[in-house]
Amino acid sequence: MSSIYPTLNLDLEIVRQNIKNMAVKCRRSDIEFRPHFKTHQSIDIGRIFKENGVKGITVSSLKMAEYFANDGWEDITIAFPANILASSVYNDIASRIDLKTLVISDDVIKKLDSEIRHEMGLYIELDPDYGRSGVPIGDLDKMEILLKTINSSKNLYAAGFYCHAGFTYKARSAENVLNLIEPVIEKLSTIKSKFSDLPICFGDTPSCSLLNDFGPVDQLSPGNFVFYDWMQVEIGSCSPNEIAIYMECPVIEKFDERYEVLIHGGAVHFSKEAIEINGSNSFGEPRLKHLSVETYLKSLSQEHGIIKCSPPVFNEINVEETIQIFPIHSCLTADLMQSYITTEGKIVDHLSAVNK
Amino acid sequence: MSSIYPTLNLDLEIVRQNIKNMAVKCRRSDIEFRPHFKTHQSIDIGRIFKENGVKGITVSSLKMAEYFANDGWEDITIAFPANILASSVYNDIASRIDLKTLVISDDVIKKLDSEIRHEMGLYIELDPDYGRSGVPIGDLDKMEILLKTINSSKNLYAAGFYCHAGFTYKARSAENVLNLIEPVIEKLSTIKSKFSDLPICFGDTPSCSLLNDFGPVDQLSPGNFVFYDWMQVEIGSCSPNEIAIYMECPVIEKFDERYEVLIHGGAVHFSKEAIEINGSNSFGEPRLKHLSVETYLKSLSQEHGIIKCSPPVFNEINVEETIQIFPIHSCLTADLMQSYITTEGKIVDHLSAVNK
Repeated sequence: MSSIYPTLNLDLEIVRQNIKNMAVKCRRSDIEFRPHFKTHQSIDIGRIFKENGVKGITVSSLKMAEYFANDGWEDITIAFPANILASSVYNDIASRIDLKTLVISDDVIKKLDSEIRHEMGLYIELDPDYGRSGVPIGDLDKMEILLKTINSSKNLYAAGFYCHAGFTYKARSAENVLNLIEPVIEKLSTIKSKFSDLPICFGDTPSCSLLNDFGPVDQLSPGNFVFYDWMQVEIGSCSPNEIAIYMECPVIEKFDERYEVLIHGGAVHFSKEAIEINGSNSFGEPRLKHLSVETYLKSLSQEHGIIKCSPPVFNEINVEETIQIFPIHSCLTADLMQSYITTEGKIVDHLSAVNK
Repeated sequence: MSSIYPTLNLDLEIVRQNIKNMAVKCRRSDIEFRPHFKTHQSIDIGRIFKENGVKGITVSSLKMAEYFANDGWEDITIAFPANILASSVYNDIASRIDLKTLVISDDVIKKLDSEIRHEMGLYIELDPDYGRSGVPIGDLDKMEILLKTINSSKNLYAAGFYCHAGFTYKARSAENVLNLIEPVIEKLSTIKSKFSDLPICFGDTPSCSLLNDFGPVDQLSPGNFVFYDWMQVEIGSCSPNEIAIYMECPVIEKFDERYEVLIHGGAVHFSKEAIEINGSNSFGEPRLKHLSVETYLKSLSQEHGIIKCSPPVFNEINVEETIQIFPIHSCLTADLMQSYITTEGKIVDHLSAVNK
């Protein structure tokens, strides 16, 4: 597919393979697969998960929960701590489906108890020393207090523990990831031995792609693996041929004196997510027949992208053609692009085109 | 305005003042004001410019040109080098309005000449040693060659020179900006003395906000000044009370042990643009009654934002309320948010909600 504008191409065969691989891994370990839909945010892609036997899903916002509930998903976790201001929206969704969300504090649980009029599940969010959000993973006393409050509420029930080890994104090898995750799995085992009747939901893409033994984990909720991206390649979670989306951008001009190429494709298409590779920040990695470490998207402004090239790659790129580029962070690129075009030319939906 | 979701608030009084200030500055210097609309991307806000006497505008993409042409703008510059692949779109717009765009190379001008069937203006883009795109600002021979090719074409005419000194964004004081721009103005004077009949269009927000004498410049096309943002405060282009937009985000949880607050507001709302302030990256600056240098948006994931607070600010923030935050880069935040809510509660349009 070539285009006169920057477009986001989607290879559905790779998507199907990525979904199948993770579904098989979960089945083998007798783990419930509750994939995160924040990466694709697409009804069409959601249906591929359904074909693979998925019943419960994970999302990161109320609007995403509504989007997928409207497509018939009946078991949705909003993996974001409850927003008391939005209790009417939780009530609306919980009246229609099995809705779950995360909690961290006694105060919020009590406020939810006074506002939620339909059955709703609460996962206690655990912070595995990531420092974003959650109850410290070693604070079993606090977990006990929160569970007591949940269990004494009217419409809320304890759905389990939810743990996102986002620090695996700092890893730069499979070994790194495994070393970072080992102590988390140990701490989850301690929690499991104390609260054995409650499921543990776990799942960042690096861990889920690389681990084979998930110890006490009952549910997996990775999201990014559906597409992967160049960050995951650098982390060691996937190979380039497992990346299911890539941008296609018009080549606008070539600058001979600096082996650089101007493309139409900027921060409003790729996002400003970058990753340091060999000492330079890359905002995207050209999808070339032969990998060139010297060739990368070196800078972005609103609509401009500048690709730094090796001399042989530079000579192969032509104005009046397009160039294909793997995003650094597929979730953000897809959110900006608002739709996908499959290799067969079909348009696939994204929530951002409908209701952000 | 409070909200259960992250929203982008717009203070139209500040917008009107920012527009008026720049329009007055242009009139005083007998400069044509051709504002860049890439920051607001809004028909409603465009009309405020019209009320201030603006006739010619600047945009950064073909879709933006179509959006504003459809609202009756009849003189539009696409400040992005011509994309040969899209010649049918240029033809369509140029058949309706006075369309101009940028060129850098003889090859592209010749290809345009063979494809463009309606009168269209071409600015020669100049690169003031910024390294993004353009003819090197000292290469007068190349300018002469390009002008000759334009002048011997069928439907293309020379609209002038276009120069964007984007490196002023690296400045961290008004003096910095002025020192960076002085040599550019000198080089533009050399160009003006050789090609005296062609207008020079110039305009990054830091320069346009801080300079009073624009030397040989005939047209100004700044964009960001319509809203400004926290990056412009750090550069020295504006004061915080000149920033016209701010995010309003629900406060979700407070973490006492680390004086941090979790908000709903992440990379899909703010963008991942950050700026280093006092050695730490900030993704947004809370809009507080009393400025607190210790309080800033320290990290973002897709939907999560973590605000690091000074102890007194931490104590003033409450769950079940919202917090207002100035974006680092208003262009990218507005593009992600897809609409604005005025302080009077009215919704204001953004192109991204319609056709990205």
